[in-house]
Amino acid sequence: MIEDLAIKSDSKILLLVLDGVGGVPVNGKTELETARTPNLDKLAKQGITGLTYPVSRGITPGSGPAHLSLFGYDPIQYQVGRGLLEALGSGVILDPEDIAARGNFATMDANGVITDRRAGRISTETNKEICAHLQQNISQIEDVKIELTPGKEHRFVVVFRGKGLDDQITETDPQEIGQEPIECEALAPAARKTARIVCAFVERAKELLKAPANMIILRGFEKIQRVPKMQARFKLSPVAIATYPVYRGLAKLVGMDILETGANVGDKMETLKNNWEQYDFFYVHIKKTDSFGEDGNFKEKVRKIEEVDKHIPEFLSLNPDVFVITGDHSTPSILKAHSWHPNPFLLHSKWVISDQATRFTERECMIGGLGRFNAIHSVPLMLAYALKLKKFGA
Amino acid sequence: MIEDLAIKSDSKILLLVLDGVGGVPVNGKTELETARTPNLDKLAKQGITGLTYPVSRGITPGSGPAHLSLFGYDPIQYQVGRGLLEALGSGVILDPEDIAARGNFATMDANGVITDRRAGRISTETNKEICAHLQQNISQIEDVKIELTPGKEHRFVVVFRGKGLDDQITETDPQEIGQEPIECEALAPAARKTARIVCAFVERAKELLKAPANMIILRGFEKIQRVPKMQARFKLSPVAIATYPVYRGLAKLVGMDILETGANVGDKMETLKNNWEQYDFFYVHIKKTDSFGEDGNFKEKVRKIEEVDKHIPEFLSLNPDVFVITGDHSTPSILKAHSWHPNPFLLHSKWVISDQATRFTERECMIGGLGRFNAIHSVPLMLAYALKLKKFGA
Repeated sequence: MIEDLAIKSDSKILLLVLDGVGGVPVNGKTELETARTPNLDKLAKQGITGLTYPVSRGITPGSGPAHLSLFGYDPIQYQVGRGLLEALGSGVILDPEDIAARGNFATMDANGVITDRRAGRISTETNKEICAHLQQNISQIEDVKIELTPGKEHRFVVVFRGKGLDDQITETDPQEIGQEPIECEALAPAARKTARIVCAFVERAKELLKAPANMIILRGFEKIQRVPKMQARFKLSPVAIATYPVYRGLAKLVGMDILETGANVGDKMETLKNNWEQYDFFYVHIKKTDSFGEDGNFKEKVRKIEEVDKHIPEFLSLNPDVFVITGDHSTPSILKAHSWHPNPFLLHSKWVISDQATRFTERECMIGGLGRFNAIHSVPLMLAYALKLKKFGA
Repeated sequence: MIEDLAIKSDSKILLLVLDGVGGVPVNGKTELETARTPNLDKLAKQGITGLTYPVSRGITPGSGPAHLSLFGYDPIQYQVGRGLLEALGSGVILDPEDIAARGNFATMDANGVITDRRAGRISTETNKEICAHLQQNISQIEDVKIELTPGKEHRFVVVFRGKGLDDQITETDPQEIGQEPIECEALAPAARKTARIVCAFVERAKELLKAPANMIILRGFEKIQRVPKMQARFKLSPVAIATYPVYRGLAKLVGMDILETGANVGDKMETLKNNWEQYDFFYVHIKKTDSFGEDGNFKEKVRKIEEVDKHIPEFLSLNPDVFVITGDHSTPSILKAHSWHPNPFLLHSKWVISDQATRFTERECMIGGLGRFNAIHSVPLMLAYALKLKKFGA
């Protein structure tokens, strides 16, 4: 329905995502409750708050579903597998015709049996050299381009780019040692070409490799989904200001332009200012709140929140018509992991009816005027407050 | 989705259901607000609260849908009819191939016309004798076992147990006097055997019966649904501690083990303690809050709530990882019936962000941190707080 109601207009939406910002109390207070955040507090008093569920109550989301729902996409309909996320995470830009897969360098004995699925955990440096060697010698098979991206230790991502590819093929990874690699086979007639290309790729890689990393095993073949772009769905001109590959990849997936920027909040602020005229939807991603949460570093997570708080007046000085601050999922330091707790959500706009929340915290957002809602409603809400949605019905 | 995310773990979930606990104010206070509940109050302060809708806003549920949603089953998808509920309520354990029906003993005149659908409301004692007589003489027809269970006055339940049965048959109850009983007919080819068995059963019963209860009329033929078990859906080892047959039957339906226990809260506590090691999901059912509500006995309902409150420390001493206290539906004493009012819901776990609720009452739960939700989300929430759900997506 939103597709039919969205209209293009001059108003600007700023979505500031503090990755994993939500927490759980330690000594009675969460990270957000512990942090000194005078600017966020003021914004919470002026704006309207609530709590969002990335997928649904009780569900702990990965970064993929957490971001997709925040971007207005059903995270159950659009599931992005590990192969694709690792490819996106490695900075590979994928097109809808491409097929990505995750690979391991492995050790195979004289009888063709896998004796080590990780080739003795070769170093990341060695991995890079091997990938470069393979890439130089296998850049194309038939009309399909082959693109290798090294990961950590024995891991890599391979992308097959060409026409008529199909991901309904068997994996070549036997998943345990003592087995031969599995011959890639088509599971549907449409995938015959893909299986043939993959077999040829494995064969040529085997010829080029030597022990201990003398074989490759592949799994998680996946074609990137045709995700309708935000431009078409929401009539937005969206842009991402993010440094980490996964978030840049997810933003790319939904059609955002991707800007180069620095690691600090200040760098992102600068990038935002410099590009303020060109777009009307700005996704700014702060990763460290999540990283410190994953590390169990309560104190540094608090400090990162306080750093963001200092920049709030600068963000406001750009006069966004809608300014949303939220998390994609919670990452309580005490759990050292993503969690199912809903995200604090704060929306600032001249059209809000302010609520009784006095701070941007999990507990204050419990009494927020927006109540609890699935994060997929965030974009419709932002569009509405930016006066970018027509009336529904006569 | 929950099916794919649930994992087996050592953590334990305790679900204490105070049947029909929610009320409506009398002289300004509900039963929960009137009761002195220091232990529940403390738990409310430490935990997180909310309000649940068994089916949806405004809907007053029977015990079946109210419990099924609390057990994590869509109460609209899994509808359990009166025939089955009466069978379950009579303690009959049904298998998925069985067909149950509700029966009346009736009076028929010499012309074969029903003159009294209740056979003059014969006594429950007489009913038992007649059922025993029929059971002795009709235990099997073809390869189908017949099982009769007497109910109150003129009511009974009959279960047909055998292969190839189908409930697409016509009822034999004409629903009004002055009509002949309806001949049971198959409404689909698959039900021909069932119709034949039912006709033979009615014919043989008629031969064995004498006035005033000289005929039987049957309605509500229903095959028990194949309900996926909690073990498979949620990877739980669930057990029910309940005395009333309907709740034992409902628990059995979703795969719970059923323990023998006594009528008092203390008896149930004892059963719980003795079985604490063997399971990881404990459903403890307290019936009397509902019974006193149905009787319109506000004072005794308050007293029962206070009795439960006294046992809260004992429940806590077992150290459940997740402890939920809630109702299945509301039964306001002033209405003397089930109602549509949402259920107060209290979740206690080390991972909660406590809210501002200071008591376990309808009004305090209105400001609860879990907000309002359909009761079907209770199990996903309990699983999440017990760390029994994997992350969704990468």
